[in-house]
Amino acid sequence: MDFTPSPRSQDFLSRARSFIEESIAPIEESYFTELLSKNHGADWTKWEVSPLIEDLKAKARSAGLWNLFLPDKKLGAGLSTLDYAPIAEATGHSLLAPEIFNCNAPDTGNMEVLWHCGTEEQKEAWLKPLLAGEIRSAFCMTEPDAASSDATNIAAAITEDGDHLVLNGRKWWATGIGHPRCRILIFMGVSNPEADRHHRHAMVLVPIETPGVTVKRMLTAFGEYDEPYGHGEVWFENVRVPKANLLLGPGRGFEIAQMRLGPGRIHHCMRAIGAAERALELMIRRGITRTAFGKPLINLGGNRELIADLRMAIDQARLLTLHAAWKIDDAGALGAMNEISAIKVVAPNVLQRVVDEAIQMHGGAGVCHDFPLTALFSMARSLRIADGPDAVHRGVIARLELGKYKSLIDAQHGKG
Amino acid sequence: MDFTPSPRSQDFLSRARSFIEESIAPIEESYFTELLSKNHGADWTKWEVSPLIEDLKAKARSAGLWNLFLPDKKLGAGLSTLDYAPIAEATGHSLLAPEIFNCNAPDTGNMEVLWHCGTEEQKEAWLKPLLAGEIRSAFCMTEPDAASSDATNIAAAITEDGDHLVLNGRKWWATGIGHPRCRILIFMGVSNPEADRHHRHAMVLVPIETPGVTVKRMLTAFGEYDEPYGHGEVWFENVRVPKANLLLGPGRGFEIAQMRLGPGRIHHCMRAIGAAERALELMIRRGITRTAFGKPLINLGGNRELIADLRMAIDQARLLTLHAAWKIDDAGALGAMNEISAIKVVAPNVLQRVVDEAIQMHGGAGVCHDFPLTALFSMARSLRIADGPDAVHRGVIARLELGKYKSLIDAQHGKG
Amino acid sequence: MDFTPSPRSQDFLSRARSFIEESIAPIEESYFTELLSKNHGADWTKWEVSPLIEDLKAKARSAGLWNLFLPDKKLGAGLSTLDYAPIAEATGHSLLAPEIFNCNAPDTGNMEVLWHCGTEEQKEAWLKPLLAGEIRSAFCMTEPDAASSDATNIAAAITEDGDHLVLNGRKWWATGIGHPRCRILIFMGVSNPEADRHHRHAMVLVPIETPGVTVKRMLTAFGEYDEPYGHGEVWFENVRVPKANLLLGPGRGFEIAQMRLGPGRIHHCMRAIGAAERALELMIRRGITRTAFGKPLINLGGNRELIADLRMAIDQARLLTLHAAWKIDDAGALGAMNEISAIKVVAPNVLQRVVDEAIQMHGGAGVCHDFPLTALFSMARSLRIADGPDAVHRGVIARLELGKYKSLIDAQHGKG
Amino acid sequence: MDFTPSPRSQDFLSRARSFIEESIAPIEESYFTELLSKNHGADWTKWEVSPLIEDLKAKARSAGLWNLFLPDKKLGAGLSTLDYAPIAEATGHSLLAPEIFNCNAPDTGNMEVLWHCGTEEQKEAWLKPLLAGEIRSAFCMTEPDAASSDATNIAAAITEDGDHLVLNGRKWWATGIGHPRCRILIFMGVSNPEADRHHRHAMVLVPIETPGVTVKRMLTAFGEYDEPYGHGEVWFENVRVPKANLLLGPGRGFEIAQMRLGPGRIHHCMRAIGAAERALELMIRRGITRTAFGKPLINLGGNRELIADLRMAIDQARLLTLHAAWKIDDAGALGAMNEISAIKVVAPNVLQRVVDEAIQMHGGAGVCHDFPLTALFSMARSLRIADGPDAVHRGVIARLELGKYKSLIDAQHGKG
Repeated sequence: MDFTPSPRSQDFLSRARSFIEESIAPIEESYFTELLSKNHGADWTKWEVSPLIEDLKAKARSAGLWNLFLPDKKLGAGLSTLDYAPIAEATGHSLLAPEIFNCNAPDTGNMEVLWHCGTEEQKEAWLKPLLAGEIRSAFCMTEPDAASSDATNIAAAITEDGDHLVLNGRKWWATGIGHPRCRILIFMGVSNPEADRHHRHAMVLVPIETPGVTVKRMLTAFGEYDEPYGHGEVWFENVRVPKANLLLGPGRGFEIAQMRLGPGRIHHCMRAIGAAERALELMIRRGITRTAFGKPLINLGGNRELIADLRMAIDQARLLTLHAAWKIDDAGALGAMNEISAIKVVAPNVLQRVVDEAIQMHGGAGVCHDFPLTALFSMARSLRIADGPDAVHRGVIARLELGKYKSLIDAQHGKG
Repeated sequence: MDFTPSPRSQDFLSRARSFIEESIAPIEESYFTELLSKNHGADWTKWEVSPLIEDLKAKARSAGLWNLFLPDKKLGAGLSTLDYAPIAEATGHSLLAPEIFNCNAPDTGNMEVLWHCGTEEQKEAWLKPLLAGEIRSAFCMTEPDAASSDATNIAAAITEDGDHLVLNGRKWWATGIGHPRCRILIFMGVSNPEADRHHRHAMVLVPIETPGVTVKRMLTAFGEYDEPYGHGEVWFENVRVPKANLLLGPGRGFEIAQMRLGPGRIHHCMRAIGAAERALELMIRRGITRTAFGKPLINLGGNRELIADLRMAIDQARLLTLHAAWKIDDAGALGAMNEISAIKVVAPNVLQRVVDEAIQMHGGAGVCHDFPLTALFSMARSLRIADGPDAVHRGVIARLELGKYKSLIDAQHGKG
Repeated sequence: MDFTPSPRSQDFLSRARSFIEESIAPIEESYFTELLSKNHGADWTKWEVSPLIEDLKAKARSAGLWNLFLPDKKLGAGLSTLDYAPIAEATGHSLLAPEIFNCNAPDTGNMEVLWHCGTEEQKEAWLKPLLAGEIRSAFCMTEPDAASSDATNIAAAITEDGDHLVLNGRKWWATGIGHPRCRILIFMGVSNPEADRHHRHAMVLVPIETPGVTVKRMLTAFGEYDEPYGHGEVWFENVRVPKANLLLGPGRGFEIAQMRLGPGRIHHCMRAIGAAERALELMIRRGITRTAFGKPLINLGGNRELIADLRMAIDQARLLTLHAAWKIDDAGALGAMNEISAIKVVAPNVLQRVVDEAIQMHGGAGVCHDFPLTALFSMARSLRIADGPDAVHRGVIARLELGKYKSLIDAQHGKG
Repeated sequence: MDFTPSPRSQDFLSRARSFIEESIAPIEESYFTELLSKNHGADWTKWEVSPLIEDLKAKARSAGLWNLFLPDKKLGAGLSTLDYAPIAEATGHSLLAPEIFNCNAPDTGNMEVLWHCGTEEQKEAWLKPLLAGEIRSAFCMTEPDAASSDATNIAAAITEDGDHLVLNGRKWWATGIGHPRCRILIFMGVSNPEADRHHRHAMVLVPIETPGVTVKRMLTAFGEYDEPYGHGEVWFENVRVPKANLLLGPGRGFEIAQMRLGPGRIHHCMRAIGAAERALELMIRRGITRTAFGKPLINLGGNRELIADLRMAIDQARLLTLHAAWKIDDAGALGAMNEISAIKVVAPNVLQRVVDEAIQMHGGAGVCHDFPLTALFSMARSLRIADGPDAVHRGVIARLELGKYKSLIDAQHGKG
């Protein structure tokens, strides 16, 4: 149970931090101010990629700060889950860093899926340009008409027609689908309706320009469109793709989803922890530099004790996530199910709490765009729902905990 | 301590509820969808008033559902604070109702100020058209460069120059200032720098078109511009107004602020409670109609107990607010200081909690514009800061509570 | 919805407060010190009634501060539930006052049962001496072998044998059964096993000396035996009583339980609120008079804000309880089911929270017998379980809340 | 940052667990039942050591499960703080194990003090019999007349008189002082009143039978006397001891206290975590085996989600404590100040929360002596006060956190 990052990880970490501090942080405010001034809002067809981002991406790539999330030694940095974790935390300090390091969700998860399950042709066509940061991707799983917290509710249809698959269904919360360079979608639907609930679904690769794919609109997440990525509602109407676009095979959608989610949740949670550190720092700086009733805010009332509580909450969330990362490396994502569900509840809630308090310390400044706090709040709030809502993860943890008492439970059933 | 509304209040309440249900609720969704589709965003110069609203205002006025907040029997409905409270709650069920009934903040507070402190000329010029719903107003108190939680920090300057006052300062969070019909601002600044901290400020009426008044931008509140009202940053640079625009007199700004805040906080809090009821209703409806793991969401895990907790929290907040309203009527705003501070902490926090849980029950739908939940969240979150942040109100309550032990405290000082 | 107590109630209240302050408070500490010094512990057969208590009872009775809980105008004070509520709160400031005013649970509930349901003979035999404070009583409902949170689990048997009833079963948490003057028990058991779950039980009067009744031991509640009352485990083995001892009739046990619980819960909750006020006062006094790091504790860290939070919590709990009392008077206990369940959750939890914080402010002194804080904690903690645990009351509130959406729920069932 | 225990630690751990399970757990219930039946209560002069305990101590000692806390390789097991941590957790599952393994507070801390600071004579006289488990000791620091949360408040006096020291003062919460074999006290008092606040105190060894030492009474902790150890109030009146009894030297009391507290807090917290695991297990077993409303309690309402929350809280507290232990080994107690303060807040609060919920799941059984839950609650509640109350530790954490912003704070001071 050694959480010490390897020397390679530490080297990447220190370089990533320097890069963020020296190259990304200084442009962040002006980047968002400019974005805001364009006032594109819902009109995603006008969204564009800032040359600032493109330049930084090139710079990061040439510095070797690129695809660090991918365990593959050739294609990525070959880091273990635990080794990547502190780097993910570092990127969470910046709203732009994940994209610039080509480590942005949902592309990371999609690349992992292609890396694990893709055929050579699929990899050549999609993984390669994704790894190069030339295109972007979206993941089309959640549906507006079903409670997607129960993934077996997913109802979109995949039917066969000769050499093709025909896809139908409405999806939403397809993050990144508004990006000008989004080219490939991973679609989840029912391929084997007669099978048991965990073998009914499949995943299929769908180029975004396939006829029948219509991006209907971009959704707000707490008022934010998250330009130029966006969260789209997208309809699939008789969309035909070759059978070669199927991932792994019919009925294997859940298998892919499980594989995708383990390390992805570590990334999300470590970014959330990095974001919480940033919010805490903003909060403290504000508390030191603003004065009311003759004292710096930070020394008023229970503010210092509050800082202590937040520090303890963040530190606990970090250790829990590092432990989950270590467990994934040690026992695989399935063996770390309890740990992964736990961090998925803990980390976003800690972030939400820290940001909420940071907002309060900022007063009016905290709720407007002058600070990144509402953006971080939106991230926290959405993360409590995405990838399984809190309640589902609590359910998993409880099931595993009660599993330790199986013989007692069985004995009770015997009685009853 | 009788919280029963008078027959007149009950009559207004039942008519207001019917009006909201029959005339406002049905158009709310399409109103906001249309607003969203205009995609005006930050460009407040394009903001416009929907004819839908104008029609409903006229209809409400002719139905006598107009200016119900104003205790004046001729100009308003002549209701006591307690009698108006349940009506304020009813309007909180709708994002549009307060405007339609001409009971929208900050105009209500501004009208109360004019009604209490205005000269006949001031009333004729500004109160009359405000009561007629023809113009709107803004309140310019908070400043970006000072922690406004301590109102004595307010630094904008009011100097005399012959028959005129000259105003200088930067203000923000001037709600309503983006409205196409906003005509009059109430400006707070330092008129008597040498006086004690509660007699240094004054309030002045400033027509928005006075030279030197510049609306610099609209601020977002949790990503929302709240078109067509907005929350503006506004600069006053050598703004000259006649001395006749002064309210009450030099050094009397705090006196006016106190008078303004008592009933206004009741209104805010009762609207928050109405909003919480709406969020709870949305939450329950969603929980009944969505299914996961073979059951309606509402029957999963601790959701029913959660509903119970929210019901108890709302009911307690309501009783506390009614009690504060009764106390204002009974003992005046000063005599109800503890009660007013208490509801100002309790009600927005209850709303924030209810909305947060309602969002969670909605999943992805909860964080986007398809439901009014993020708007209600923004309202709650902002309300915990506006009109004094939670910490300031807790401070007031503590001071009053400890005041009961004055002799013990004095005895300790004697010892020390 | 008028919570103002009647003039008679106010008169009783002010006299009760004076009596507590002048006659009870001064002897409380020495009473408990003496009790502690006797070191009787679990040996309840040695428990005795202090002459101090007997004297004060006589004094209270002659002052007319006696049986104030009973709505009967002849036998009690004829106060409504609402009118008695503030008096119950006042008695909660003192651990001894309820007994001294003959308003102590469970005797109050038992007297109400006899008053409502007793025959003339039953009243003559038991209600009369109870009202005179000459004897005490216990309520035997909870069983060690069943989850009594679901009262239909109660399994003790009542069978007929000629003119007699024969009782068998094990009971515990029979409060007051250790009192030297405890003479009469109310026993609940299954009389009609074939009936539906709410008509299977009956209640029977059992003189404590009836053969077959064995008090096995006294239970601790958070380490306290609560001498000289106690909480007993009592076994009923072939206990024979005349049929005339049956209350109301076979199968009517739940009906009696419901009737008993409504006002009783108001009393419990108001006493809890009074106890919370006392704990808050102790906390503040301690915080003012102890110094650390150069300041009175009360001014350190977030202690003042904490005081504010507790003040708000107590005030909300009081208003909620007064409202429930008003509702009982207005709509009967059944019509106030939501309100009664709500206060039963809220008030004990508020008390527990206040006491927990008061203990913290006292440091080591708070956890020992030098202050009444652990006794108050025990009261709070037990009250969250007695009379239905929190979860059961939350369940009731949720059921009533969801009942408002019956047509929507039915429509969903239609779909499914 | 490797939390994996060494092979030696794992060996001790597995043997300690087996010993507890096979030898201690089976006698625990009867041990406490017998103790209770003796009904000694406050009369500590009758307290005695059960032969059961003596036998188990001998057995544990011969099994090598003895003095495992002591880092000394000869006298103890030579385990690092991190290596001892899981063993401390294991002992927390049992109320008796710490004593049986000779790892009970406050003796562990006192032995560490003697080991670190004692002269050869002091060690021979007191450390040797303590390590042999032949005698017991108490720590006399806290005073009834001062807020001991600020340790500089400690006012007891140490004056010189020739070759002797003369001690005067009142102490309380001297845990273990009621034990029949308690022989030696460590007394803290002011030796250098003129020095700065952290160099004014000294510690002195005082044999309990020294004239002038009077144990006045035993204090209850949440109603428990914790026989045969007890928490005593003890007066020192002109107590004369040779100067050779001084530890380290005049003015070095704080230095000793700091040294004593680091590892001791790890022990306390890990035991608290073990206790929390035990409470959780009891809670789950109760929830599985009791039925209400047709279901096992564990499947009602939010109980499963609650189990998940408690599991997450415990796991986080454990990781935080292991990290603090690792930090002590890595950077010394001073270098781990933030981490030590954090666990001191987190672990007892987690234990209190888990026990409170476990009590609730048990209903009435949870608050009486039939289960160890109130004893565990008392442990948690006292631990939030002992060794520095929560607020003091939050203060330390905040100070260290704000220390990271020193230059910003200095810049503000420059401005002001």
